[in-house]
Amino acid sequence: MAEKSAGNRTVKLKSHVSIVSAASIVGPKEGMGPLGRYFDVIIEDEMWGEKSWEKAESKLVKETISKILNKSKKSPADINFVISGDLLNQCIGSNFGLRDSGIPFLGIYGACSTMGESMIIGSMLIDGGFADNVVCMTSSHFCSAEKQFRFPLELGVQRPPTAQWTVTGAGGVLLSNEGPGPVITYLTTGKIVDMGIKDANNMGAAMAPAAVDTISTHFKDTGLSPEYYDLILTGDLGAVGKSICEDLLKREGFNISERYNDCGLMIYDRKKQDTHAGGSGCGCSATVLAGYIYQEMQKGNLNKILFVPTGALLSPISTQQGESIPCIAHAVSIENR
Amino acid sequence: MAEKSAGNRTVKLKSHVSIVSAASIVGPKEGMGPLGRYFDVIIEDEMWGEKSWEKAESKLVKETISKILNKSKKSPADINFVISGDLLNQCIGSNFGLRDSGIPFLGIYGACSTMGESMIIGSMLIDGGFADNVVCMTSSHFCSAEKQFRFPLELGVQRPPTAQWTVTGAGGVLLSNEGPGPVITYLTTGKIVDMGIKDANNMGAAMAPAAVDTISTHFKDTGLSPEYYDLILTGDLGAVGKSICEDLLKREGFNISERYNDCGLMIYDRKKQDTHAGGSGCGCSATVLAGYIYQEMQKGNLNKILFVPTGALLSPISTQQGESIPCIAHAVSIENR
Repeated sequence: MAEKSAGNRTVKLKSHVSIVSAASIVGPKEGMGPLGRYFDVIIEDEMWGEKSWEKAESKLVKETISKILNKSKKSPADINFVISGDLLNQCIGSNFGLRDSGIPFLGIYGACSTMGESMIIGSMLIDGGFADNVVCMTSSHFCSAEKQFRFPLELGVQRPPTAQWTVTGAGGVLLSNEGPGPVITYLTTGKIVDMGIKDANNMGAAMAPAAVDTISTHFKDTGLSPEYYDLILTGDLGAVGKSICEDLLKREGFNISERYNDCGLMIYDRKKQDTHAGGSGCGCSATVLAGYIYQEMQKGNLNKILFVPTGALLSPISTQQGESIPCIAHAVSIENR
Repeated sequence: MAEKSAGNRTVKLKSHVSIVSAASIVGPKEGMGPLGRYFDVIIEDEMWGEKSWEKAESKLVKETISKILNKSKKSPADINFVISGDLLNQCIGSNFGLRDSGIPFLGIYGACSTMGESMIIGSMLIDGGFADNVVCMTSSHFCSAEKQFRFPLELGVQRPPTAQWTVTGAGGVLLSNEGPGPVITYLTTGKIVDMGIKDANNMGAAMAPAAVDTISTHFKDTGLSPEYYDLILTGDLGAVGKSICEDLLKREGFNISERYNDCGLMIYDRKKQDTHAGGSGCGCSATVLAGYIYQEMQKGNLNKILFVPTGALLSPISTQQGESIPCIAHAVSIENR
């Protein structure tokens, strides 16, 4: 049973909610990046033997949940819920990737914050006694995302320096009420923040205020200071958004600079890989968590993480209608105990 | 704290989770239907003073949550979570409709099953002690849905008899750990069922097997029989799907015919309103629940309801790529105690 109080957005978990397995499958570009050795599978090309990018993304989801289950020696019948979503219209990456699983399904949409939202709901379902095992996962795919949100790839449109590169990859974790940890300790659910930014090629700047709101709320609610964590890790603010996030948090009295990174800046070598402001997409924070973070926590090289996936809740239709970009960020504390 | 056991998809709530207020706003066609007097607001036209159908749908969401809060004399600061989603790409109905609310937001995507998914998650968050008050809601809009999923309205494409009419409307409830009821008692989460149907103009037939799976699982898990309920209410199977659902459940040994209806058949007068197989859309089950069902339960005319919203998890992209339609249904028991 959890603690919460009125006006307090952070839940402190009372029972043991452990990450017991994690898996990630990424595209060739992500495989060539600095974190390449942490991923379970690097696919050879963006189609992965399928007839469309969307079908390839569904296959990423299907194969990733299969790996998560295999690693934990669980069968689908052992899993009480799978919680997943993606960037595609109507979340078809998850819907098709999970349709043969036979596992009770809660579909979510949080844009690139999906991995955080999934872990927040999953952790509460276990802590509340509603589930023993929950798979939390998400995916994104560079080609299906460009096709959907920006321009046809074949057009070769030039990208501005603030643009980010959608990660091709699926990642996820199995949360359980048993297992050695790392464990989930605090959950801070985001609210929608819209500061009026309208440039879909500058998502980092749009999302940064949402990250600031959630991170500062987390510290105020818990009484913890940034020094409590080894690493505060935003999802995909990229170079522009990360710097805004640091600055705005400083103004609120929280200096996170010495222990702060962004998954979008970790997954690619920006000098060699031409990804402009860095990585983005639901798969960005999910694969970095399931690969690098989980493995380094198991080794004890990282022990206390504040994981803060960030999402831009726009669509091409809202952009065409002149709307600004509503954003959200969710924070999950992951700790070795 | 809840009861659950391995392989059992139904959660029995242990604490008091009450519906304390409900609100619905619908379009003119829904207002002229048999349930018209149960809705809070009937808008005069589908634009409702906005510049686009999508903006009108966001306004439905914004005004509906405002009504839900006003009726319960709560302010946004009293609400721990709002859980919502819709049919639009990237769920912009909810994202834009709720961006000014300041309430922690969990975005979901369950197509027309959204109201059920929202109440399942919301009920568990209250029962688990993570929240005192949760708003569960959703919306749909005939014009924005046709534009997105089928053909431009201006084209005047003829609709086959199996086609359904997307409800213009938003509906929602406030769940709370206080209040006189009706209360939520059981939750049966759906799994994805795909029987290979590919006709996006025959969603009822595609969704019926998912409803059958969830309803039969509910009875097997709980040991209850159909006679336990005053009304078993699917979301939007329409005329074709309702008849398939009844037949398939009979084969599984559950005769629900004497106490079964479908929101899609209740919301329009099919003889006078030319809606073919009936209503559909997230707003269909949500407005029927928030209007007719909630008010008749308050009067004591209905006392035990099994509410089973049904969703077709397709997108135009998946249909164009020759994919079949994965479907899901979630069941929520609502009882006067």
